Parts: sequence; structure tokens; C-alpha cells
Amino acid sequence: MKISDLQTPALILDRGKVVNNTKMMTARLKGHGVLMRPHMKTAKSIDVARLALEGNFGGVTVSTLKEADYFLRHGYADIVYAVCFEPGKLGVAADLIERGADLKIIVDSADVARAIAADGSPFKVLIEIDCGEHRTGITPDHPALLDIAAALADRGKGQLAGVLTHSGHSYQCRSVDEIRSVARAERAAITLAADRLRSAGYDCEIVSVGSTPTAIFGDNFDGVTEVRPGVFVFYDIFQAGLGVCSVGDVAVSVLASVISHQQEHNRILVDAGGLALSKDRSTAALEKDLGFGLVCDRDTGQPIDGLTVGSVYQEHGQITLPNVSDFNRFPIGSQVRILPNHSCMTAAAYDGYQVVEGTEVIDQWKRCNGW
Amino acid sequence: MKISDLQTPALILDRGKVVNNTKMMTARLKGHGVLMRPHMKTAKSIDVARLALEGNFGGVTVSTLKEADYFLRHGYADIVYAVCFEPGKLGVAADLIERGADLKIIVDSADVARAIAADGSPFKVLIEIDCGEHRTGITPDHPALLDIAAALADRGKGQLAGVLTHSGHSYQCRSVDEIRSVARAERAAITLAADRLRSAGYDCEIVSVGSTPTAIFGDNFDGVTEVRPGVFVFYDIFQAGLGVCSVGDVAVSVLASVISHQQEHNRILVDAGGLALSKDRSTAALEKDLGFGLVCDRDTGQPIDGLTVGSVYQEHGQITLPNVSDFNRFPIGSQVRILPNHSCMTAAAYDGYQVVEGTEVIDQWKRCNGW
Repeated sequence: MKISDLQTPALILDRGKVVNNTKMMTARLKGHGVLMRPHMKTAKSIDVARLALEGNFGGVTVSTLKEADYFLRHGYADIVYAVCFEPGKLGVAADLIERGADLKIIVDSADVARAIAADGSPFKVLIEIDCGEHRTGITPDHPALLDIAAALADRGKGQLAGVLTHSGHSYQCRSVDEIRSVARAERAAITLAADRLRSAGYDCEIVSVGSTPTAIFGDNFDGVTEVRPGVFVFYDIFQAGLGVCSVGDVAVSVLASVISHQQEHNRILVDAGGLALSKDRSTAALEKDLGFGLVCDRDTGQPIDGLTVGSVYQEHGQITLPNVSDFNRFPIGSQVRILPNHSCMTAAAYDGYQVVEGTEVIDQWKRCNGW
Repeated sequence: MKISDLQTPALILDRGKVVNNTKMMTARLKGHGVLMRPHMKTAKSIDVARLALEGNFGGVTVSTLKEADYFLRHGYADIVYAVCFEPGKLGVAADLIERGADLKIIVDSADVARAIAADGSPFKVLIEIDCGEHRTGITPDHPALLDIAAALADRGKGQLAGVLTHSGHSYQCRSVDEIRSVARAERAAITLAADRLRSAGYDCEIVSVGSTPTAIFGDNFDGVTEVRPGVFVFYDIFQAGLGVCSVGDVAVSVLASVISHQQEHNRILVDAGGLALSKDRSTAALEKDLGFGLVCDRDTGQPIDGLTVGSVYQEHGQITLPNVSDFNRFPIGSQVRILPNHSCMTAAAYDGYQVVEGTEVIDQWKRCNGW
């Protein structure tokens, strides 16, 4: 089957690009002597995980316990669930552990640590450190670090598995120098937290950092045991705008058909709207705002004159053309591919991927969506 | 089961509110002597459709051919697919008709009309009219109106089923008077198009308009045969901000758990982020910007001091508290419900609904997502 045979909208995955992206990241982190535990929140696919894990130790990061269950069922047991844990999820997590998951959960509160310690299941816990993003976690010099460790140790089983941080604020950087600076701060924060724990007599086996930009531009991972990049498997036009990848590295795109010509308004409409592309507007923060996605040729995947999807409705995407004669290039029924702002958000609207090599559809890969 | 027993995030549907919302709209349109063909793009659920169709003629509107297939399989054959049709979908649509669908498709191009006429399947076609939204459709005075009719008539079978318009620009209104004015323009446009077709000797059985705001505030539907409101089944806080409903009418909400306290930043974090809430920011255009959703009490569903989700990450939502003492009201592991900006977008992230009456979970209803 060819791409041109697909019904639209459809989520296209260029397998060759995933292979390149994952090989590059694997080689980069190996070069720094640090393990990679890819974050599967982007792809949510066992097939993509297999590519990302090639040459790596087999540990994955997940964003939901449903993903943890999915990867466990597919034979990947070494799992970090990298969203702050709350006691309402103890039962589900305990069940995963009982079924063989080597699950690590994360906390940033002594109260939660006490609830976990009291539960009785053999949980492994990472303490989440805030290295500057100010989303979740505690600062590495915070007194709560040792309170959490003590709460876990109270139980008498070595539950404390280490420390973890996420430098999500690297997405706010506007230069490689800024990203390098965030990477240094990320490492400084996590190694300080690890040192404090060890000085207080606790084990700290896992020292985990990660974001795709800092994984790409970080130049020193001393004291770090593992890195958790996520979006690198696919990249997107936001990452390209950050300078983390090139537009040519973006592995996912949305296939869409032209459904209307609005000549009076110099616009064409496609059948990919807010649901098919997502309403993510991350490139609005960059120098070059790419609307809801960058319009590319269906077969070559190359951008077409910088055209973007300027606005979306639930099932409609609006593309403004530079001039009226361009309508002939986009007859109704013709197809384009649209590169997303944020591949994690866009891919989540689809059950799975239409996997392509060139213009051939070679496979369908499923996703594990929802909660 | 109680709401408090659910794993989070979860999509909560208050059945009683759906019943009220659909009864109110049914009564309103009956009062105007016009049929209701509810747009199922919001709920994508046969169970919600049954409530919305109670006391109505049974016709539905859909936004994807997958929805058309779903409603046909559940016994609802009278279907308008209200997104401009393109020839790449002829095969799928023809298959639906062969299986018994009384499917109506919409076009705004004579080229597409010719492709449909040439296909040979007994398609019924509505011509899409632009009544001021400038998304798709042709203006009612456009010469193409008769070209499209002629292209369809050429085939020798009475394929032209009528005209259809969508006053989506009612969402840009900022007063009831403005919405009434859009409703008048919507009716004027569609009846002009119908009159032109009839004057030229064509049948024009269906004269279809619709948006929730104009369905609520329109005061004259003379010459209109059917109205296609969609979001009214659930409403959302954007519609409440428009004045189309009250916050108390909003039937869907996202159940979330508190996962972190960030006392230094006066923020709590919940486990509902950009995927669970959607990245829709429609209330940003209103007087009162409600961020990514309005925070409510889990059991009563009442808003809590105007708290909103100020920012989102993939699985994290950030809520700023007015003052530090509020942290005690939201212990980690406690739950809140979040009313969405745009229920069509938020609901699409879930396989289905946790249907509640008060604090009891009484059922699970499935959704038909994707394409």
C-alpha cells in the first residue's frame, strides 16, 4: 500500500527516521558513559520502544500506569513511572509489582513516602528533585529530602532507589548555550541531592536526569546514572525550532486531504483540525511561529514554501496560500503531510501509526493511549 | 461505586445534566417548529445520542465517517456528515450507503459535485453555505451554487438534498444581541440559498443550520427545516462564558488527584494535564480567562473559589492557590473535578465516560474516537 491509498487524517510514522533518531541518541549517551531509559510517553508503542531500546539496557520511563502495564505485558519490566505518585494509585502499582514489574515510583513529599512505606508492597522510590523547572519535586538542598529518605527507611526495607529530575525548562531556552547551562544545572542539582543522601547514610543507586534538549547538548553526565529523553524518538517542529534537531528529523506527520478552496480568502481547508493535529501551540513561543503545523509534500515529506496550518476547528485545518494561483497546486482531494508542533500531543489522538518507508506503508503499529 | 473510587484522571459525565440539556434544546426547537439533528461530534456516544434524540426524529450529524459507521451500526441511519466531502472518501461513503445509511454529504465545489455524480452510488448531497464564518462553503449569492446543483442534476438522479450552513462565528460573539444577529444572518443566508435553488427548478428538501449559541438564542427559524447543535449535550465553561448556559449545566468534568504541593510557588499539581484536559484555550478570548479549566469540588461539582488550572504539561496540571493556608484543603491524594474549556476536545482524550448520578458511578459509556 502507498501513503496515497490511506484514508485521511492519518498518523504517518517514518520508520527510518525513528531508527536514526534512536541510534543517534543511543550513541551520544553511550559516548558520555551514561545509560538511556527512554521516556515512552511520546510514542506509547512497543514497536517504537524496541527501536529506542536497541543497544540499551532495557529500562523504560512511562507517564501513566497504563503504559507501565502495557510495557510489562510486552516483557519490559524495568519501569520508572515519572509522574509524582499519590496514594490513590497504590493498589494499581502494587498489582504491577506483584505481576513482575520492577517499578520505580517518584515522590516529592514525606507524607506520600510514609503512605507508601505503610502499604507493605515492595515499592522502589525515587525522590523527585526540582532542578529549576519548578513543576514538581523539591530543591536538592531542601530539608524534606532527608525526611522522605527517613520515612522510607522507617519501613526497614531498602525502598529508596535514588533521585530523579526533569529539566523541562530546557524547552524555554532560546540558544544552545542556554540549553547547556540548563544541562549543567540539572546535573548539579541531581548530584547534590544524591551526595546529600549518601552523606546521610542512604543508598542512592539511580541518579536520573532527562529532557531531549539537555540529552542532546549536555556535555557532562558525571555522577548521573541514566538519562530519560522522550520526544527524541519522533522530534517535532518545536524541537527543530529550538535547534535540537532538523525539520528533516521529524518522524511523525499527519496525512490530510484538501477539502475546500476559499479563493476569496486565499485559503485552503484540510481534513485535519484540532483533534487530528492537537491544539498545542508551542511554536508560538519561538522566533518562527508555525501555527498548528508545517505543511509538507505528501510523498517527499519536504516543507512546501513554509506554508503552515494557521487555524483549526475540530475537523478542519485552515492554510493560507501566498497567492491565488497556488490553488492549482492543491486540488480538492489532493493530500499533504503536516509536521506537528508537539508530537507527544498529536500522536495521542490516534490509535496507532501508519508506518512508512518512503511512500510505502509497511506496517501498522498500535499505541497505548489513555489512563 | 463512588466517584471517589475511580482512578484518575477520569472523564465524568453527569447523566442528569445531559438529560436536562437535551430536553431543554428539544423543547426549544420544537417550540420554533423546527427539527433537531444533534451533532454527535461532541459526545461520540450512542448512549448520549439516545438521550439527545428522545422526542426528536432520529437524524444525527457526524464529524467523521467513523462516527457515521458507528451510528449506523447502532441503528441510526439518517446521517449528515457535516465536513466538506472530498473524492478520496467516496469508497467509504458508498459502502455506508450500501449498508443502509441514509447518508447526506456536503460539498462547496462543482468539481467535487461532478466527481460524486460520476461515481454512480446514490449519494445525497447538501450544498454548504457560508453564512459569515468564512470557514468552508460558498456565499448564498455565489454563482457556484447553481453550478453545483447542475453538476449533481447532470447525473439524472435527484441527488441534491438541500443546503446546510454552520454559524461557528457565533463563538466569537460577546453578547446575546450579537448571537441573535448571527442567528438572523444564518437563517437569511440559508433561506436565500434555498430560494435560489428552488427558483432555478431544483428541489431543496433539507435546509439545515446550526450552532449551539444560535440554536439557543435564534428567534426565527422560518424556512429552516433542521438545526444541528452539538456542544449543548455537555456544554463547557466557554459556552458558559458566552452566556449560552450556566456553569451548573456543564455535564462533563475531569476527575483529578492532587499529586504535589509546591508551597514555595503557591501551587498544587494534579494528575490531569494537556492530554487529560486538552490544550484548548478558548476561554482566553473571553472576559474571564479560565486557563485550562475550572477547579470544582469532587462531590458537589461546585467551583472552588474560582480556582483554575493555570498551565499544563503532558500529565501535570498546575493550580495556583490564593494563599498558603489553602494547601490543607487539598492534601496529596485528594481529588477535584475540572470543568473543561471545550468539552468536544477534552472528551476526545478518553475511551469513554464514567457516568454519574450525584456521587455514584452508575455506568460506563463508550466513545467512538478517531477516524
